[in-house]
Amino acid sequence: MITRRRALALGGVGAAGLAGAGAALISRGGSEAVTDAVAFTGPHQAGIVTPAQDRLHFVAFDVVTKDRERLVRTLREWTAAAARMTAGLDAGEIGAVDGMPEAPPDDTGEAIGLPASALTLTVGFGPTLFRDATGKDRFGIAGKLPAALEPLPRFTGDTLDEAISGGDIAIQACANDPQVAVHAIRNLARIGMGTVSVRWSQLGFGRTSSTATGQATPRNLFGFKDGTRNLKAEQEDLLREHLWVPDGDGPDWMTGGSYLVTRKIRMLIETWDRSSLAEQEAIVGRHKGTGAPLGAAGEFDEPDLTAVGADGTDLIPATAHVRLAHPDTNNGARMLRRGYNFVDGSDGLGRLDAGLFFIAFQRDPRTGFVPVQRSLAASDEMNEYVRHVSSGLFACPPGVTGGGWWGDRLFA
Amino acid sequence: MITRRRALALGGVGAAGLAGAGAALISRGGSEAVTDAVAFTGPHQAGIVTPAQDRLHFVAFDVVTKDRERLVRTLREWTAAAARMTAGLDAGEIGAVDGMPEAPPDDTGEAIGLPASALTLTVGFGPTLFRDATGKDRFGIAGKLPAALEPLPRFTGDTLDEAISGGDIAIQACANDPQVAVHAIRNLARIGMGTVSVRWSQLGFGRTSSTATGQATPRNLFGFKDGTRNLKAEQEDLLREHLWVPDGDGPDWMTGGSYLVTRKIRMLIETWDRSSLAEQEAIVGRHKGTGAPLGAAGEFDEPDLTAVGADGTDLIPATAHVRLAHPDTNNGARMLRRGYNFVDGSDGLGRLDAGLFFIAFQRDPRTGFVPVQRSLAASDEMNEYVRHVSSGLFACPPGVTGGGWWGDRLFA
Repeated sequence: MITRRRALALGGVGAAGLAGAGAALISRGGSEAVTDAVAFTGPHQAGIVTPAQDRLHFVAFDVVTKDRERLVRTLREWTAAAARMTAGLDAGEIGAVDGMPEAPPDDTGEAIGLPASALTLTVGFGPTLFRDATGKDRFGIAGKLPAALEPLPRFTGDTLDEAISGGDIAIQACANDPQVAVHAIRNLARIGMGTVSVRWSQLGFGRTSSTATGQATPRNLFGFKDGTRNLKAEQEDLLREHLWVPDGDGPDWMTGGSYLVTRKIRMLIETWDRSSLAEQEAIVGRHKGTGAPLGAAGEFDEPDLTAVGADGTDLIPATAHVRLAHPDTNNGARMLRRGYNFVDGSDGLGRLDAGLFFIAFQRDPRTGFVPVQRSLAASDEMNEYVRHVSSGLFACPPGVTGGGWWGDRLFA
Repeated sequence: MITRRRALALGGVGAAGLAGAGAALISRGGSEAVTDAVAFTGPHQAGIVTPAQDRLHFVAFDVVTKDRERLVRTLREWTAAAARMTAGLDAGEIGAVDGMPEAPPDDTGEAIGLPASALTLTVGFGPTLFRDATGKDRFGIAGKLPAALEPLPRFTGDTLDEAISGGDIAIQACANDPQVAVHAIRNLARIGMGTVSVRWSQLGFGRTSSTATGQATPRNLFGFKDGTRNLKAEQEDLLREHLWVPDGDGPDWMTGGSYLVTRKIRMLIETWDRSSLAEQEAIVGRHKGTGAPLGAAGEFDEPDLTAVGADGTDLIPATAHVRLAHPDTNNGARMLRRGYNFVDGSDGLGRLDAGLFFIAFQRDPRTGFVPVQRSLAASDEMNEYVRHVSSGLFACPPGVTGGGWWGDRLFA
């Protein structure tokens, strides 16, 4: 096992040499860490089309400084730490173990010995980073606010809690080990102390969407497969059309980026659990076991929205989720989803506080999430069993390249 | 893959044959499920000395019925479902897929296709199940209340939230997949509807204690190894002395059982992260990197509580956690711990709501947890960085054998 301490002792690799993303071959964990690290740099940020890892820690920060230079410094420090942690290294060059005794460690230590675990860290900027509630330009970047970052409309039935919605900067940590995802967010919060403050944070498990052709479709807490028709990493034409912001589409700094919508969707699972199998399947529009659309045999069969049963009614009801969310119902709208199930304990009313933390990336929410959610909010029979309690919207820039840092093109 | 549906089709194994724990060889998941199932029956409950799984879902229920027979019926139904789920089967004989269309499924479905994942389900009974707040015998079992189930004293510094403390019945679900642990608790809550109501529930990850000799010691969110000196499954003499209730020690129904103490310990990690490495190590009494006691070289070296440094002061300070928790300081008190880290989002004050969900099993809390916690509460320097916000105490009966059920000897 090559730990950070031993790597230094082996000679030739000074602290400076470990600072960048190029050091991915020397890791905190065992030999498997070398192979389970996801590249941090590239044209797009990792954590979007990366095959969905099993665990999530998502955080939204408020920026508490008015000092642009301080914010930029934090973004630079975050980038260096993110490059290290995704490579399986400590957050800082000194670490928790080799620290100076009289200084706080520059890594908190709980991930010592754990491999990279496919950790990805994906950053996004919220509309409030650009202008405050009074419209004031906070950091001299208001002129670069993308039109696509227009706040989401209020949807029918929304019961949003502002305290766990929005945020100036969001970071999505995904990993195959929750301790690794938590460690990453906790260390970024530590590094950002005085610049940012945690606004809200969400843990998730049991990803609900497959993002690669080889991944089986997992199930959400309604017990149904979720993400069968999701965009896949291999569908390059579709990703170009629906996921990545093309050149000339809004401000330059977002070219190659994507827009992130999060919705915390509380599921009233106790009520759901009392509904019949037939009712559940009619609401979803799919069979619970196979995941096949009603009237079809295989999970990946195309839903036939025109099929009519023996009694002359639609096989897939007009109010079924699969119909209302279908691209044909929404002007071809498609998103890349990578949601996670959550249980946040209980709600004080004898019920589990559980549901889906919905995450979707798209080229433009105005033609992606918004029309689909309008359609669902208006007619989805599932609304009886869900409550949207949190909402987030963030512009995720393209990947870091060369000596770049998170937001370099925005703050350039 | 042998799914439940195929198992039935293969013939010979009728629904009745699947109802008991003996059906462990036919599982919901893939072939690996056969080997990753933990036996449900035995002289002791599983989930105590079972090598600690990576994930936790713990629930405490209030009993909402006054009907003893109804409670007994639920306990019997729970036992059958627990035997099935720990074997990797659906919670009920019909399942989520093969259900009658007009009835609610008897399994919620989100674990379809997942292996047993070493799921264990461990039940315990709280003092309030025996007598209500007015002292009234609720179910005719007050005469069987063990003296060892005496409510815990209030400890210095306790900041307990009653809404997430106590409970009439607790169930600990541990598994290597959080979706499997959540599925189990959710289905037990579903089965218990009308008999019990969820009082509180807690998810955990990254176990902090090793319970088997072969398990590496994981780290808590202070970044330190936690559980180095824990009782291990292989130490049969110590388990007999400290863990299992012997014959004649209190009421018969607890012989072979153990008492469970839970404490939700919020860690003020942002404050901790600003303290120096030397201060952290002095508070814990161990080195952060190796886990070795101060003054020693190896993690498993015995702490030398008498060692004095060059300056004449104790190498392990008088207020160090390792000293105050040591058996020599507490009349030989030892427990089997199997705690989990938690992050419950943020606290609305810009901080992560994170810490340790402490779980300890012992022969008698009055000679186990209580003296150790008294010692810690009085002097532990770590108190500056932790808050105990929830507390639970439960009597966990011995394992189910033959055609038995949870609580059979208590309600006999």
